[in-house]
Amino acid sequence: MRSKHAAILKTCKFLASGGTKITRLPVDADGLVRPDGLLRALQSSVTVVSVMAANNVVGTIQPIEELAQFAKLHGVLFHTDAVQAGGKIPLDVNRLQVDLLSLSAHKLHGPKGVGALYFRKGTGLAPIIFGGGQERGLRSATENVAGIVGFGAAAELARKELNQEAARLAGLREYIATEVLRNFPNAYLYGHPTKRLPGHLSFGFRGQEREVGKLLDALDQAGVAVSAGSACSANHSGEPSGVLLAMGYDAESARGLIRVSLGRFSTQQEVDCFLDVLSSAVSTLSDTARSASLAGLTNPAEVAFA
Amino acid sequence: MRSKHAAILKTCKFLASGGTKITRLPVDADGLVRPDGLLRALQSSVTVVSVMAANNVVGTIQPIEELAQFAKLHGVLFHTDAVQAGGKIPLDVNRLQVDLLSLSAHKLHGPKGVGALYFRKGTGLAPIIFGGGQERGLRSATENVAGIVGFGAAAELARKELNQEAARLAGLREYIATEVLRNFPNAYLYGHPTKRLPGHLSFGFRGQEREVGKLLDALDQAGVAVSAGSACSANHSGEPSGVLLAMGYDAESARGLIRVSLGRFSTQQEVDCFLDVLSSAVSTLSDTARSASLAGLTNPAEVAFA
Repeated sequence: MRSKHAAILKTCKFLASGGTKITRLPVDADGLVRPDGLLRALQSSVTVVSVMAANNVVGTIQPIEELAQFAKLHGVLFHTDAVQAGGKIPLDVNRLQVDLLSLSAHKLHGPKGVGALYFRKGTGLAPIIFGGGQERGLRSATENVAGIVGFGAAAELARKELNQEAARLAGLREYIATEVLRNFPNAYLYGHPTKRLPGHLSFGFRGQEREVGKLLDALDQAGVAVSAGSACSANHSGEPSGVLLAMGYDAESARGLIRVSLGRFSTQQEVDCFLDVLSSAVSTLSDTARSASLAGLTNPAEVAFA
Repeated sequence: MRSKHAAILKTCKFLASGGTKITRLPVDADGLVRPDGLLRALQSSVTVVSVMAANNVVGTIQPIEELAQFAKLHGVLFHTDAVQAGGKIPLDVNRLQVDLLSLSAHKLHGPKGVGALYFRKGTGLAPIIFGGGQERGLRSATENVAGIVGFGAAAELARKELNQEAARLAGLREYIATEVLRNFPNAYLYGHPTKRLPGHLSFGFRGQEREVGKLLDALDQAGVAVSAGSACSANHSGEPSGVLLAMGYDAESARGLIRVSLGRFSTQQEVDCFLDVLSSAVSTLSDTARSASLAGLTNPAEVAFA
């Protein structure tokens, strides 16, 4: 198992409470699952391996095809959480050779509250919801027809535009990365430099990791929505990202991640606006931090942000 | 437990496979749960009682307030499946004193694929889906926002129009019942004559129970959609309704039920059209059945319907 998302983590926690043994796969400094770690795990009595196709926090794209092949050779089921990757990178279940793949409609501009689970024929699945036998008996309930149709339409559009959108978004991402690194000497990037989601960039400011909350507030007030780590939890805990800790970041750096997500409607103009807003927000932060430091306060988080 | 719907039956079957003891509550000839049966069941180590607020097959409305009170006195949780009753009869959780109540949006003209579970504060519930902690941790997943809003709007409308709609639909129902009984000497009604959903009527034709399928096909071809028993199963099994067997009907009569559901958009004109179509469909059936009998065929189902 290697996933940051609570949908997998909490499910594993529940399984563990029932006695199932959970093994976390190690990742390298870029967030890539280490094949040797998977091979070691496969020596024990593993029944299913789950690896995110692309990480939601650092954007790293995993070598799913290679990892799934290892699992297949050991007769172990392979699941990939492709929620972040769906509509953004090609996902061919036959090429990837995964047994199970999950998707979420709203991540590819479809309606909220609809998802899909692909499973290869012959994969033994047992339902947890019972009733009228809909969805081949695996998810009984009157189907969310409007949502399903919307998901289908969104997926079709995403597929059609995937190549050109991926190229466009990767261009915008590289532009932001270059500007951020050029403008802020203490800026650094998280995740793999090239094996990453086209519209996903994550960076931090060395020495200012504790001020991410204020930075986000300032950006929010200027109409720019970016995330600190994972946004997929209803209750933000302020805990450092587990995947960043696994990548070797200390708790401080793990808390300092700023995630920029670009999508179909993001434009060059918006990106330039974001960079402007970011510059003035960071300069204000530095001043505040310096004032705080001058005033003898040890914790910058205690300083009200003007 | 007294419910016809697979959502409850299949869940009980699953629980039973894990060792949970399931007790089916007896009903009387009108489909009403017998209070003495519930009291007997409450003597054993029951933890939760589930009774449908109104039955989907025969339309009978259960005395939920009275039954929930018995459960309460014995310190047993009481759940009611109010999917059929929602928006059609008043449902006040404080008056009914139920601990849990389930609803489905599409049954009150809301969108398909959305439901609600009311639970009284302090009712100990454990999730079966894990993730971001949405819905107070009980149903993790990005919410179906459009569906939820549509459900809310539909529920508000249903509540506003409930009294006048109930009176109007009960009037149409009584009109159909009177006409059916007057026009067909072998017609009979199922369920309680008055304690029933306003827009729900179920009837059969004595001696012609096996021809319900053909009757429904003929009605369908004439543009009238009625159901044979429960329509809430994706795979129609042709099995006789369990609740009808429990009410004392033999398998033959249990298979002969025709269910007419009237809703907000049903009109007197449509009802008259239905009665015309029904008359001609039934007369054709009788002829076919007679011809089949004359031709020496023993199974009328083998006769093609013209």
